[in-house]
Amino acid sequence: MEFINIIDYIGTFAFAISGIRLAAAKNFDWFGAYVVGFVTAVGGGTLRDVMLDVTPFWMEHASYIIITGLALLFVLVFRKYVVRLDNTFFIFDAVGIALFTVVGVEKSIAAGFPMWVNVIMGTITGAAGGMFRDIFINEVPLIFRKEIYAMACLAGGIVYYVCIWSGLGPVAAQIIAAISVFLVRVLSVHFRISLPSLKSIDASSDS
Amino acid sequence: MEFINIIDYIGTFAFAISGIRLAAAKNFDWFGAYVVGFVTAVGGGTLRDVMLDVTPFWMEHASYIIITGLALLFVLVFRKYVVRLDNTFFIFDAVGIALFTVVGVEKSIAAGFPMWVNVIMGTITGAAGGMFRDIFINEVPLIFRKEIYAMACLAGGIVYYVCIWSGLGPVAAQIIAAISVFLVRVLSVHFRISLPSLKSIDASSDS
Amino acid sequence: MEFINIIDYIGTFAFAISGIRLAAAKNFDWFGAYVVGFVTAVGGGTLRDVMLDVTPFWMEHASYIIITGLALLFVLVFRKYVVRLDNTFFIFDAVGIALFTVVGVEKSIAAGFPMWVNVIMGTITGAAGGMFRDIFINEVPLIFRKEIYAMACLAGGIVYYVCIWSGLGPVAAQIIAAISVFLVRVLSVHFRISLPSLKSIDASSDS
Repeated sequence: MEFINIIDYIGTFAFAISGIRLAAAKNFDWFGAYVVGFVTAVGGGTLRDVMLDVTPFWMEHASYIIITGLALLFVLVFRKYVVRLDNTFFIFDAVGIALFTVVGVEKSIAAGFPMWVNVIMGTITGAAGGMFRDIFINEVPLIFRKEIYAMACLAGGIVYYVCIWSGLGPVAAQIIAAISVFLVRVLSVHFRISLPSLKSIDASSDS
Repeated sequence: MEFINIIDYIGTFAFAISGIRLAAAKNFDWFGAYVVGFVTAVGGGTLRDVMLDVTPFWMEHASYIIITGLALLFVLVFRKYVVRLDNTFFIFDAVGIALFTVVGVEKSIAAGFPMWVNVIMGTITGAAGGMFRDIFINEVPLIFRKEIYAMACLAGGIVYYVCIWSGLGPVAAQIIAAISVFLVRVLSVHFRISLPSLKSIDASSDS
Repeated sequence: MEFINIIDYIGTFAFAISGIRLAAAKNFDWFGAYVVGFVTAVGGGTLRDVMLDVTPFWMEHASYIIITGLALLFVLVFRKYVVRLDNTFFIFDAVGIALFTVVGVEKSIAAGFPMWVNVIMGTITGAAGGMFRDIFINEVPLIFRKEIYAMACLAGGIVYYVCIWSGLGPVAAQIIAAISVFLVRVLSVHFRISLPSLKSIDASSDS
């Protein structure tokens, strides 16, 4: 097993925990919690793969199914500690979106799409799972309202191409892009940086 | 018309009724109710087909469009009786998820996927329509919170493979799997068996 | 740039504005507002393309990404006027759904599907973006409850085939169909015509 797989699995585990915890807070049964955890972990990559017209990645290895099961088991066994471990999960989650973003960019490049599609696919891979999670638990997606999240993925995708344009090879570009996503995410939360909202607009009417 | 088609159409009709009734309770107009009924009936199979990369099944025969129309007509004409017929629809619905599960497993096998993907595709075929319905009417999906529903589909998919491993042919495995889904669903409701929730976990924070 | 492109871009712009305004009313940050605007503009066509198994249209030209950016800029700069311009946007939006419907019918015909699928694909292209928008902002989709919207698209698709059956060529059929969608939409709002709801049915139980 390569290093990148370990990171990928850690990211999946952290994403699944995030979904399972929020589902638990909504009184979902454990099967529902499993489904929400799974969708949080693989939803972004699945949307990407369907739009790239390739087989959804989780249908090719049972690992993602199993890791979500382990995440559920983990929450069941360590439920008291799961809340306290918030900061730990936050770091895992940030590592996860960093890697997922890079994987998304690479898969889109491999499918032959132009740069701007690849950046969007990286962002979708990193951020759409959390969006599906919030739709499932019937909340307004948090990634649209709080903190820098999808923006970190987008920034990472752009950094990737800045590296390529600067003459770096793909592997160096991937590493630097992933670190960028991680740093943007962690620093924006640490310094409580968020994007301005557009709230002053009255948009009560439907057009 | 073969027996399996009749069962398939009955399941579609029952699923469509379920969507139309819930849409009606939310003051949807009749067109919206039709759409919700249609999505309830074909949503699971459509998600399956998109992930298997085959043409969504309802685009190949007009039957599903027509049956949903008949379901709408039925609700309009017999609105007073529709509520009273709850138990009848429950049985139709249970027959529907049983057959949909088996159809989903078979379509996934035909597309060349491994066993565990086939079981998941069977579950998605049987259960995802109800999930889409609840998202459309802006409710937390009931299949995640109440009763054994998606679990019945999952159990049926597993029973299918237990039969195959026991040396039974595909047709026998299909019949036994479908009966299993039906029985798990009906008995769990009858005896008020439900999965435990994970509610004691505090998951108020977003990771 | 051909005339049809200009109309297409105007429709995209109007749809994006509609999404951005509603997202703003929900306190989304500007990135979230961009995403909701983009999904409103391209969501219907993307769902259509995934089901037709072709590459989502917006992945082939950067125009839709750029136009959504311009729509966001427009809302930011002219936020005070955006509300007052309601009627203007309503007309743009009606032009948009009219053209999107015809584009959807044509793409489905090109993919080799039968008439009734083409009409549905036209309706999905015109109306599903607004449905996704409402799911994202966690509202019951308005197209199911208010005014003639998806019905206008459906009517346009049917008019298209009535024209073809009457011996008209595809271009004439497209123009007449688009005008029909526009008129049905505008006149139904002007005369406050809406479909009856099904509200008298008690559907509190889940089947």
